[in-house]
Amino acid sequence: MSRRRFESMNCGVAQALEQVGDWWSLLVVRDAFFGATRFAQFEKSLGISKNILADRLHKLVEHGIFEKERLNEPGNRFDYRLTQKGRDLWLVLTAMRLWSDKWVFGREREPLVVRERDSGRRVAALLAVDEDGRPIDPGSLEFAPGPGASASAGPSRSRGAGR
Amino acid sequence: MSRRRFESMNCGVAQALEQVGDWWSLLVVRDAFFGATRFAQFEKSLGISKNILADRLHKLVEHGIFEKERLNEPGNRFDYRLTQKGRDLWLVLTAMRLWSDKWVFGREREPLVVRERDSGRRVAALLAVDEDGRPIDPGSLEFAPGPGASASAGPSRSRGAGR
Repeated sequence: MSRRRFESMNCGVAQALEQVGDWWSLLVVRDAFFGATRFAQFEKSLGISKNILADRLHKLVEHGIFEKERLNEPGNRFDYRLTQKGRDLWLVLTAMRLWSDKWVFGREREPLVVRERDSGRRVAALLAVDEDGRPIDPGSLEFAPGPGASASAGPSRSRGAGR
Repeated sequence: MSRRRFESMNCGVAQALEQVGDWWSLLVVRDAFFGATRFAQFEKSLGISKNILADRLHKLVEHGIFEKERLNEPGNRFDYRLTQKGRDLWLVLTAMRLWSDKWVFGREREPLVVRERDSGRRVAALLAVDEDGRPIDPGSLEFAPGPGASASAGPSRSRGAGR
């Protein structure tokens, strides 16, 4: 897979793939939401080699998804903390999790529940809304070039999500 | 990267990664939303080798994300169409696109606009809601094992998305 190709694609999905890096990187972000901040915590949770993990963390810091914080400890130790850019990936993770709950695990077999701390209400769905927060019907969507569209990119014809 | 490892992870994110396959697969799904149905259309849009594309399409069909439909044409030709399981990935793609619009392209430089056909209202955000459609505050989330949790998996401690 050529990284350069994604980089040059004028497409939000390709750009997200480019910056997040690969599957492992997304699981590193997931573990950060679960509370991991130390290299050893990510390593233990993911069971990947130190080399791969170091490379992925380096790229995530480079893209501003994590920031490194030096700790007041003996040795050259860091905490890795999600930036706002990184925390904003929670919607990507949530969309993937809800899709799996529906299509892989099935109802009542979800491995994880995410809920509002005080009310206990569960995150059950993601709703597409317009700029005023009003729901959008996903069954009647169309695609159009945006202000940053390149001449060659974009949809050949528009289709709704069909739901 | 070991595919087996994702497969055995009792986690919705890992399962989505396992079934979608890799970055290319997600761009194949994106192109299907843009109207592509033929092998040659995906090939032209993505600029990848026939071998890689054939492999990714095969896996996507295997996981029930696409279905193949034989065409009444000379030769062994197929249409590849998203199933409902595949169409449900539009939220994953939308979450990635909105993240890139915010953090990579910036306001007013989005390459693509997605809007409701009749009203013209744009998909501007994804809102996390509970089972009754009421918004959830993403700044006060906590994680808990679900009914399908395994003993060893899941968060070590709970944290909100911090927004």
